[in-house]
Amino acid sequence: MIKAVDWQEGVLWIIDQTLLPHRVERRALTDYRGVAEAIRSMRVRGAPAIGVAAAFGVVLGAREILEKGEDFPQKFEEVLSTLAKTRPTAVNLFWALDRMRRVYEQSEHRTPKEMLRALEATAVRMLEEDIQANRAMGQYGQQLLQDGWTVLTHCNTGSLATVSYGTALGVIRAAREAGKEIKVIADETRPRLQGARLTAWECLEEGIPCTVIADGAAASLMRQGRIQAAIVGADRIARNGDVANKIGTYMVALACQAHQIPFYVAAPLSTVDLSLASGEEIPIEERPPEEITHIEGVRIAPEGVKVYNPAFDVTPAELVTAIITERGIAYPPYEKSLPSLFEQANKRFDRVPW
Amino acid sequence: MIKAVDWQEGVLWIIDQTLLPHRVERRALTDYRGVAEAIRSMRVRGAPAIGVAAAFGVVLGAREILEKGEDFPQKFEEVLSTLAKTRPTAVNLFWALDRMRRVYEQSEHRTPKEMLRALEATAVRMLEEDIQANRAMGQYGQQLLQDGWTVLTHCNTGSLATVSYGTALGVIRAAREAGKEIKVIADETRPRLQGARLTAWECLEEGIPCTVIADGAAASLMRQGRIQAAIVGADRIARNGDVANKIGTYMVALACQAHQIPFYVAAPLSTVDLSLASGEEIPIEERPPEEITHIEGVRIAPEGVKVYNPAFDVTPAELVTAIITERGIAYPPYEKSLPSLFEQANKRFDRVPW
Repeated sequence: MIKAVDWQEGVLWIIDQTLLPHRVERRALTDYRGVAEAIRSMRVRGAPAIGVAAAFGVVLGAREILEKGEDFPQKFEEVLSTLAKTRPTAVNLFWALDRMRRVYEQSEHRTPKEMLRALEATAVRMLEEDIQANRAMGQYGQQLLQDGWTVLTHCNTGSLATVSYGTALGVIRAAREAGKEIKVIADETRPRLQGARLTAWECLEEGIPCTVIADGAAASLMRQGRIQAAIVGADRIARNGDVANKIGTYMVALACQAHQIPFYVAAPLSTVDLSLASGEEIPIEERPPEEITHIEGVRIAPEGVKVYNPAFDVTPAELVTAIITERGIAYPPYEKSLPSLFEQANKRFDRVPW
Repeated sequence: MIKAVDWQEGVLWIIDQTLLPHRVERRALTDYRGVAEAIRSMRVRGAPAIGVAAAFGVVLGAREILEKGEDFPQKFEEVLSTLAKTRPTAVNLFWALDRMRRVYEQSEHRTPKEMLRALEATAVRMLEEDIQANRAMGQYGQQLLQDGWTVLTHCNTGSLATVSYGTALGVIRAAREAGKEIKVIADETRPRLQGARLTAWECLEEGIPCTVIADGAAASLMRQGRIQAAIVGADRIARNGDVANKIGTYMVALACQAHQIPFYVAAPLSTVDLSLASGEEIPIEERPPEEITHIEGVRIAPEGVKVYNPAFDVTPAELVTAIITERGIAYPPYEKSLPSLFEQANKRFDRVPW
């Protein structure tokens, strides 16, 4: 399986996703600014992958401060803030940075070297947990998919969006590993074309039958009875179950509702932001107009045209059939089911796992 | 105003829309095969423009047969069939070819030269009628749009899709000419990007405020209250009011329904196919996979991936608030309102105008 994010002897390795599917190029990141740039420019993307990459960014930043003998508390804040400012919507980023900050805050009695080791150990644990969480999500989620189904997915939620296995695409993988014949329909997912570029590539690599469609074709296929379920990832889920995810997700959910097709969301609990009452409070990133006016550097829209380019939208909880997490499946009302999954998690680990 | 289709001294002039918005190039077509190629490759596109271009294709074909002294009835069928085989969904094409065939069939008493003149006169009349029909649609339709509204449109339905004024974009033009401050949101309209390339260009040329969005962003904007109506064109409308239009239209209509936003269709009566009971009978063109895997010649999806690329979808009548035609506005139930517009038309002209 592809490893989108990896840590080897003090170096963060990512697959540069802006070059896919044309070239599979690994990039070594040895500096927190490079990590921030990679997140901002979407060389590494997908909420869980962003979280883990940012955690290693903190390790690289802390190492640099110590090597240069700079003022730790002040510079460490700078590292955290540089990484935090890359992308506003995916909460996994802030969750990862908070967790790293806590390790630092609990390190007063440690030598600088010990603290660095603790930071690194935490980031490595997050990487491993991500794979485990994906596998668990896969096991829970695959029970919702029936043999022979064709499943629509939006954006990329596979190995490339996580450390390795995937969230929504991981559930599809798990269903296939369980012997079910599941086919994938991949929305191309404008503007960044993660479906056409990344999901299609992952599916081809692994022999998962996959058909790419224009985003506008999804409802039409549902009406023809050619799609039995939709499953997507998430960048942030509010306490009430509202889901922020890649722009276009809300239209998929509306189409599912109109055709009485289940609409599933697969995301680790690190994506759930219990501090937000509803999706209205989720900040939505707007990205550069060039993502719309140009494709692969080629201009398509006329010069001077106005563009609105939100990277995400919010799907209201009432359109979400179920939310698949690594601790089980949450059903409506999410106000109750989501917090209860957190409580289970706390009990099992005897403290919050992060 | 731009003239997308024009006839000058025996030559059919079109703007090559595959080159827009980068280059405005007129192309002279002097041969019916060239007209067929231009329709197939979407150099000329938009249901009404296709109809008129095909009519002139028939004129060019008939002229060639006479010049070469070929067997007229047989060769004429070949001309009609070559033009008919270009694109299956827009009924205006078949409507135009039928009308031209009827002129030929009524020409037994005419000399070849007279028949050619009659064919040319009919095609010229269709061109003029198209402009008049657009203007009339604009006048009827603009009453539905309120001052200050932002109106979503999908694909291109402006001058470029017709002879000159436009259907859905024509209605927006008419509202602005009537002094209403209407803003346009243009879906980019994958795969062929008629919104980003053509609608945006037309709007810029004429100073109509226009913002381009990814197709997936429409519902999100509606939820934010930033869109007050959607208006689209049509390629074929069945007797019951089901509307075949550019792929993605159905998702726009579903989003309108979910947000209680009016969804209008603007199309001349030549787009209404009373012979079809419902949209299920409308043939939907599938176009080459390269429209999805490549953009402007640049590959975006991995080699070997499967693609499904329907050019159109069908929006069921129950999602259509009103259909704006050159003879007035039809409201549900369309089974009654559409035929009655045809009857009015017949009375006014004292025979079917085509």
